[in-house]
Formats: sequence, C-alpha cells, structure tokens
Amino acid sequence: MTPALNATHDPKLRSWVASANEAGCDFPIQNLPFGRFRAAGSSSDAFRIGVAIGDQVLDLKAAGLVDSDDMNALMSASAKERQALRAAISAGLAEGSGQQAAWSGKALLPQAKAEMAVPCRIGDYTDFYTGIHHATTIGKLFRPDQPLMPNYKWVPIGYHGRASSIGVSGQVFKRPQGQTKAPDAAEPSFGPSKRLDYELELGFFIGRGNALGEPIAIGEAEEHLFGVTLLNDWSARDIQAWEYQPLGPFLSKNFASTLSPWIVTMEALAPFRARFERPAGDPQPLAYLDAPSNREGGALDITLEVLLQTAKMRAEGVAPARLTRGNTTEAAYWTAAQLVAHHTVNGCNLQPGDLLGSGTLSGPRPDEAGSLIELTQGGKQPITLPNGEKRTFLEDGDTLVIRGYCERAGAVRIGLGEVSGTVTA
Amino acid sequence: MTPALNATHDPKLRSWVASANEAGCDFPIQNLPFGRFRAAGSSSDAFRIGVAIGDQVLDLKAAGLVDSDDMNALMSASAKERQALRAAISAGLAEGSGQQAAWSGKALLPQAKAEMAVPCRIGDYTDFYTGIHHATTIGKLFRPDQPLMPNYKWVPIGYHGRASSIGVSGQVFKRPQGQTKAPDAAEPSFGPSKRLDYELELGFFIGRGNALGEPIAIGEAEEHLFGVTLLNDWSARDIQAWEYQPLGPFLSKNFASTLSPWIVTMEALAPFRARFERPAGDPQPLAYLDAPSNREGGALDITLEVLLQTAKMRAEGVAPARLTRGNTTEAAYWTAAQLVAHHTVNGCNLQPGDLLGSGTLSGPRPDEAGSLIELTQGGKQPITLPNGEKRTFLEDGDTLVIRGYCERAGAVRIGLGEVSGTVTA
Repeated sequence: MTPALNATHDPKLRSWVASANEAGCDFPIQNLPFGRFRAAGSSSDAFRIGVAIGDQVLDLKAAGLVDSDDMNALMSASAKERQALRAAISAGLAEGSGQQAAWSGKALLPQAKAEMAVPCRIGDYTDFYTGIHHATTIGKLFRPDQPLMPNYKWVPIGYHGRASSIGVSGQVFKRPQGQTKAPDAAEPSFGPSKRLDYELELGFFIGRGNALGEPIAIGEAEEHLFGVTLLNDWSARDIQAWEYQPLGPFLSKNFASTLSPWIVTMEALAPFRARFERPAGDPQPLAYLDAPSNREGGALDITLEVLLQTAKMRAEGVAPARLTRGNTTEAAYWTAAQLVAHHTVNGCNLQPGDLLGSGTLSGPRPDEAGSLIELTQGGKQPITLPNGEKRTFLEDGDTLVIRGYCERAGAVRIGLGEVSGTVTA
Repeated sequence: MTPALNATHDPKLRSWVASANEAGCDFPIQNLPFGRFRAAGSSSDAFRIGVAIGDQVLDLKAAGLVDSDDMNALMSASAKERQALRAAISAGLAEGSGQQAAWSGKALLPQAKAEMAVPCRIGDYTDFYTGIHHATTIGKLFRPDQPLMPNYKWVPIGYHGRASSIGVSGQVFKRPQGQTKAPDAAEPSFGPSKRLDYELELGFFIGRGNALGEPIAIGEAEEHLFGVTLLNDWSARDIQAWEYQPLGPFLSKNFASTLSPWIVTMEALAPFRARFERPAGDPQPLAYLDAPSNREGGALDITLEVLLQTAKMRAEGVAPARLTRGNTTEAAYWTAAQLVAHHTVNGCNLQPGDLLGSGTLSGPRPDEAGSLIELTQGGKQPITLPNGEKRTFLEDGDTLVIRGYCERAGAVRIGLGEVSGTVTA
C-alpha cells in the first residue's frame, strides 16, 4: 500500500520556523526530509540526523526525538514507527507548538551553516534502467535495428553499482581516465574521457530490509521504501562503449555518483502519487510485478530540472542555465515498488540504507532528455547555452545541477532540494 | 612489489600446536590465515579475529596481539605493519616460544568448536572475468562466431556484484526464482531456476585503500592486496541469459555468493608466485597494466579442486566426488595487481575489506572447467558421478565444495581450506 494522507499533509499547516511558510520553499512543514549534518568547519564532529525545515536544520537528537546518530537504524524502523516520528516532528514544528522555545534555541541550525554528508551508510547500490525513452534513444545509437532489447518490457533491467564513490551534493571529482577505442582504430588508447556525461535520476532508499531468501511481495514493497533523493549518475560514454560487453558498465560509472543531501520520505510524497498505466498494446507485467496498489498509485509525480553552469558563467556570476525539465510519471516504465519486488524475487536481501537508482529519467520529447548524449544526438549536435558557449559533453569546470519538486492542486508544494557536482581536470 | 620471503616462510619452522606439523595440513605455521570466529553456540557473542593454526584457531585478542575485533581496521594496516604482525604470530606459535603456556590455555579454540563468519565487512564486491578459457567456452555458447569480445585482451572485464548476499562456507540457500525465456517461447515465464550452476573463483581482499581520484599504480598494487579466499559465485544460467543485456548479470548472481572463512595473506603466498606471461602473439597490456614486478611474479600458483556431494551421497555417507582440478596460473589472463590498477585507474576508491572476484578459473583442458555449463557443454552432455547419478546443473540438496592449496619444491604446502554451500528447494 502507498502511504496514506494524514494531518501532517494538511495544506493549512504552518510552522513557527517562518522561512518554511514562504511560497516556493522546498522544505515546508509538509515535507520534513531527513539528512546528516554537522556545523560547517567542525570536521572532527560526527554527523547527526537532521530534518530540513525552511532554511533551517532541526537536530533530531537535540530536539529529543531520537537518541542515536545512526541514520540506518532510523531507516530500519517499521512504517508505523516512521509515521509516528513524522507526526512528532510535525507537531513540534507546527505553529503554536510548545516546543518552539526549546527547539529554536538549541536544536536549529541554518542550512547555510551546515555541512551535509551522504545521508546514510549505503551498503549496496543498484542502478536500474526504468527510463524507457532514455533506453530507446540510447539503444538507437548502439543498435539502430533494435533500440529496445526484447527483455525491456518484461524485466526491470538493473545492475549493481559502486557504493564507495557516492558523494553528496557539492562533490568535485577529477575527470576519469581510461581505455577508449575509436571505431576505426586498430587498438585502444588511454587518456581522459572525452565524452563525460551526467544522468538525471531519482534515488530510492530502502528502509526496513528483508532476510536472504525471503522475497518482498509487490503489495508490501512500499513499506520497505524509506524515501527519495536526486541522483546524478555521471557516465563516461567513451569508456562505457569499449568496456561494457559482455558484463555491463564498470569504470565508466564508478568514479563518482552524486546525491542530494535530503531524503524526502515516501510519507511526504503521499499527495504526489499517480496512476501507473502501461501504454496500450504493451505486455502486462508478470504477476510478481503487478498489484492493484501499484496500478492505482505506484507512480510518483515529480518535476525534475537539469541546469548547467560553466566555469565562464561562474566567473561572470551568471546563474546556471536550464538544459531540461520533465516529469517522472512520463519517464519511468517501472515503479519503485516493482524495483523492490524484482530485486528480491530471487531471494536477494536488501538492507536499510541500500540505494536503488531509477536510471536516466528522460521524458518522451527530445528536449526532456536526461543526459547530454541524448540532447546532442550522440555528440553530433552541440547545444548552445544562453551565453553562447556550446557543449556536446561536459568540460572541465562545468557544474551540473539537478533540482526536483512536487506541485499539485490541493497540496503544498514540496521540493527535493538539489544535487550539484563539478568536474575538474 | 610482491611480498618477499622471510623467516616466517622457513620450511624448517614447526609449531608447538602439533596438528600444524602434520603432512597435508592446510594451516601449518607458514600459512597463518585470518578469519572471524566465535565459539559455536555463543550466538550473542561478537565475532573475534582469529588465525588458523593446524586444527586450532588462535584468538588474536586473547593472545595480546591485537586490541580490537575489527578485521577491517586490521586490513587497513600498511604492508610493513602486516608483516610485523605476521612475524609476531609466527614467533609466538613456533616451537620453543615462550608464549606456549599462556596461549595454549586461553587463546586457542579447536576449529571444530568454532563458528566462522564472513571474514570482514565487505563494502563493495567486484567480480572480474579473468578466466580466458571460461570466457572463450561461454562465449562460444552465446556467440559461436565471436567467442571472445574484441575488448577481452585489453580490458580486465569486471562488473559490480552484490555484497549483502555474500555468505561464509556452510551457506545454505534457496534455489532462486525468476524470469526465464526459452528461445522458442513468445513470452517469458516465472519459476525456479532450472540451470543453477557454481563458479570456481578466487576472492582477493583489499587491504589499505585509496582516496577517490587517486589511482593505484600497478607497481604499488600488491601493497593494497591483503589476501585470498575461495569464492563460489553461484549463477542461475537461465535467468542470466534472459536478463543480461544490455547491463550485465543481476538476479542471476546476487541471490548468494559463498566464501571460505580464512583469508590466506599475500605474505603467506610469497613462495607460490609465478611468472606472468602472455601467449605469443597476444597484445601487450597498456602501460598502466604493465610493470616488471607483475611480469616477474604477478601470477599465483594455486591448485583448485571442485567436489560435489548429492543428497543421496550424503544420506549414504559417500564423500564428495571431485569434478575438476586445475591451476590458477593457467586459468587467469590478468593478475590481481592488474585488477587493482584497472579498478582504480579512473579514480574509483577501494576500501579495506572490499572483495575482488577473479571470475571463473577454468583451465585450458575441458576437464578443468570451473562450472557445470562448461563441463556439460551448455547442459547438453550430462556428467556421470561415481555413484551413477547424473548432473547437468545443480539439483536441490546438492553440496558444492571448492578446495585450494599451494605446493612447491622447497616450500611447505599451505592450504586455503574449503568453501562449501548447499542449495535447497
């Protein structure tokens, strides 16, 4: 079952943290996403569990709401326990709450003064491939005669990624080096990637896990999902093209992946669920991937934007320029619940804090593509930025930003915040 | 540089633990592999760091040699620190040592009374594909016209595996279910795998890690290798065939992987290094994969055996029957040092306790194959066991055992112990 609406979603609810009530704020009291933070500059301190409220972070331990700094332990709670914690945070932050005096003194820190960490300890990271428009466009580049593999509409295609190189928004990484081979070259050569790309994704965090050998039924999958972040799955296309057969992407992906710092919970997303329907004529999912709850509300209605700021723009004080904007309901062929059911159907065990990437979420229209390889038609058609600069792939000094938010009539807008990352020479 | 021979390898060295001096023992004083153990039945106790000696386990903390139970911390030590610890353990266990009285009382436990754990916390697990004979045979089944991909002799092909489902010898797991599709079927179907297989591999454990963005040069790679275990990378061939394109194996592998409990250190393997030479006519490795030390002693001379015990054999008290025996020097196209250099060349960070699988180590001759799909020619030619039973793939109740050992003139034989695992319905 998808999480139900309750008092914490009430559009009339306002917080005594004034910035949370401003129009367009990502973190109103209806959101309450979780992250790990410490005061900027206090590099010897442990990271603590915080909740974003307006432009502040609520320190859950200082507020007396948790007694540990272990986010993974918090994530392993049952759906009922999670809802109780959310209700307590909401009540304490609401206008008129008796907690205002106590919390505003010792339990709030401006986000501008906080350093954020990857939100939890990620045991295993799996990246899926749910973006059917992405898969089709990429497939055309590699296999014009057969863009979508015969398994695509049956199997939620996924593969294991690298957990150690996942960083948090603000991550700066060196352009990866590796082997590449031009189609007409006799031998591969070695050097920096010339086709460095981003991938626009959502990251789903697992809450309560399952034991080895005990699959999670699709009807129960939502209870094992903790929440959502933004994920940039950086990709070196030239390294990928040479290495990926027969066992899939490896060094083309594992040099860095970047997450937004705040996990927006499935409870917070309850007002933004959507029907999940397959296009007419497509095969119906096998039984283990199908459930009434998944059809009725399995999809998420999230708007995603990608922005680019070049080194020149940064030097001149020019804000990031938007490359694309699209919506997840049009992009994803499989729901998060289907990913959980598929991942565990063979008995594989998921653990609290495990991360499932959605795959690149490109919309159906060309200008909704979630990567440069799509926007530039395989690097053949450069895009022109508002300041006249051109890009086929990312250049040194480029900062890529992904933002996400949910808007619907009758609900208060909530945001996922943003994830930014910068490539250096 | 590969580890040097020193006093701990002296063939004349004997231990006051008498069983360590018996011919054919896997764990003489020249070996000293690390594992995590607790007294069998003490399920509330934490696992402790132990060293196998003869048929005993030396408790390193009780012996005063370490002050923590954290194997990953021990693995993160420098090569020099590791050698110092090995020297201290060797000196304490040697005949005539002053430690005999103290240790034999409080710091020894019979292995028969110990419960073993996965030897460390595995952050990321990467599986490579270094077995060129395996790659060729498997390639022929899928692509008769092009058994080896054009990248095979240039790129140490690897992909990320699942860390959460790795278990220790003795693991019992349920036959995985999943989607499969017969070549002539219009649609896939769902059910238990009918082509469950094992894969004979070595596992290389990372010791000291590297920072993100800082590759490990091949000449320094050996210093980042902690040691070796036996690894069974169970594989569901029918699930694999349907799911693996375009992103590689996923549910066909991640339901279980099983390790032997003892990590034989690179120091212990110093007498069993071999020249690493490419067949005449093969391309030379790119510079980042080539070093004099790798050519001179990059290979490991380990004999590996695979044995099968069916439920019927177990019920009748019949010992496991050997399926194959082969040697790693003939099977692996890439060395462990090359795997480390390749894995990090793009800046990817390795961490203490990370596991690198070798891939299936099949020898050049058909009866040295490291999997059933090879031994049975894709399931077409069943093998006959000594008791008359036949197998194409594994059946419920089958126990698969891998053993490994090193033998050379002038050195004391050491063993890697064994890894066994059993599939149930």
